[in-house]
Amino acid sequence: MTASRRLITHFDPTGDGPWQVVRMKTVVGSPLQPIDRLSVVERDLDSTPRDAEWPLRGVSSYGRYVTFRERRALEAQQPPLGRPDATCAALIPITKSAIWWDMAQDERRTILEERSAHIATGQQYLPAIARRLYQSRDLGEPFDFVTWFEYAPADAQIFEDLVSRLRSTEEWRYVEREVDIRLQRSC
Amino acid sequence: MTASRRLITHFDPTGDGPWQVVRMKTVVGSPLQPIDRLSVVERDLDSTPRDAEWPLRGVSSYGRYVTFRERRALEAQQPPLGRPDATCAALIPITKSAIWWDMAQDERRTILEERSAHIATGQQYLPAIARRLYQSRDLGEPFDFVTWFEYAPADAQIFEDLVSRLRSTEEWRYVEREVDIRLQRSC
Repeated sequence: MTASRRLITHFDPTGDGPWQVVRMKTVVGSPLQPIDRLSVVERDLDSTPRDAEWPLRGVSSYGRYVTFRERRALEAQQPPLGRPDATCAALIPITKSAIWWDMAQDERRTILEERSAHIATGQQYLPAIARRLYQSRDLGEPFDFVTWFEYAPADAQIFEDLVSRLRSTEEWRYVEREVDIRLQRSC
Repeated sequence: MTASRRLITHFDPTGDGPWQVVRMKTVVGSPLQPIDRLSVVERDLDSTPRDAEWPLRGVSSYGRYVTFRERRALEAQQPPLGRPDATCAALIPITKSAIWWDMAQDERRTILEERSAHIATGQQYLPAIARRLYQSRDLGEPFDFVTWFEYAPADAQIFEDLVSRLRSTEEWRYVEREVDIRLQRSC
C-alpha cells in the first residue's frame, strides 16, 4: 500500500544512460563533479544510497505554491516528459538560503509569484518546455530541489530566455547554489 | 555544512526512554504496534533505519500554511518543549488522503484555516500546550506528519478539548489514518 510512496527519482550518473552531458555550468555556489552520461530512474528510496559527490535525487511531491487556478491553466498546456522530438534536457539543482526557508508561506509565495512571476513566466513557455520538479530538502540532501526540463533543439533559445528571466527575479536573490547541466538524448 | 540538514527526529520505542505510554487509541485507519516507553531523539537520517512496525520519524521543516502574521502571533505565545511541569505528552501521527494531497496549495490552505481554523484554534490553547510538527511524507513514511504535544497534568482536559475540536473540522474529513498516543514523563 505504501510502496509507491517510497519511490525517489534518481539522476544516476553511473552506467550507460541515454542522456549525454553537453555542458555543466556552476551558476552560483560550489560546483558538482563533472559527469558524462545520465539516466533518470525511479528507485526505491531506501535502496538508493546517498552520493555526496553527486547528490541528485528527489521526490515528485505536492505543489507548495501553485493555486488551483494556476494549476488548471498549466495543466491545459503542459506537455508530458518523453516527447520524441524533445531531445534536449536541462537538469538544474537549486538550494535557497536560510533566510528564504525561514520566511512564512505567504512571504515566500509573494516573492515567488506576486513579485517574481515564477509560475506565470513558466506558463509562457508552454507547451514548448516540459518540466518536472523534484523535492529533496526534507530528504536532507544539499540541494532543495532538482528541476528537469525537456525541449526540442528548435526551442533551445527560448529555454535560454526562460532561465535568464527567472534568474533576474527577486526570488533568485535567495538562490545560494545552482548548477545548470545541459544534456542531449543519444540517438 | 549540510550535516544539520540530515537530522531526523525519531520517536524511538526501544530502550528505557523517559516517556511512558499510558494510552494508545486508533482514531481512524490501521493501528500501531503497542509500545511501553519512548525516547524523542535527534538522529542522523541515514543511520535511523525504517521500522515498518513503528514508522514514527520526521523532520522539523519549514511551515507549509502559517502566514507571517499568524506566525508572529504564535511565536509571541508558544512555549518551548521540555518545560519541567509539562509531564504529559501526546504523539499523534496522521495520514491525509490522496484527495487532500492532490489539491492545490490555496485549496488546502482554505480548508485548513479559512474553513477549519486549525491555526487559530491551536493558538487559543497557548501557552498551555507546547507543540512541534514533524514532516514525514516526503521521506516515504506511511504517516504524513507526526505531531508532539507537551502539557501539564492540570491542562489535560483542555488538551482533550483541543483535539476534539480539531477532529470535528472539515479538514479532518481528509484524515485517513490517525493514532493518538498519550504519555507521561517518568519521575
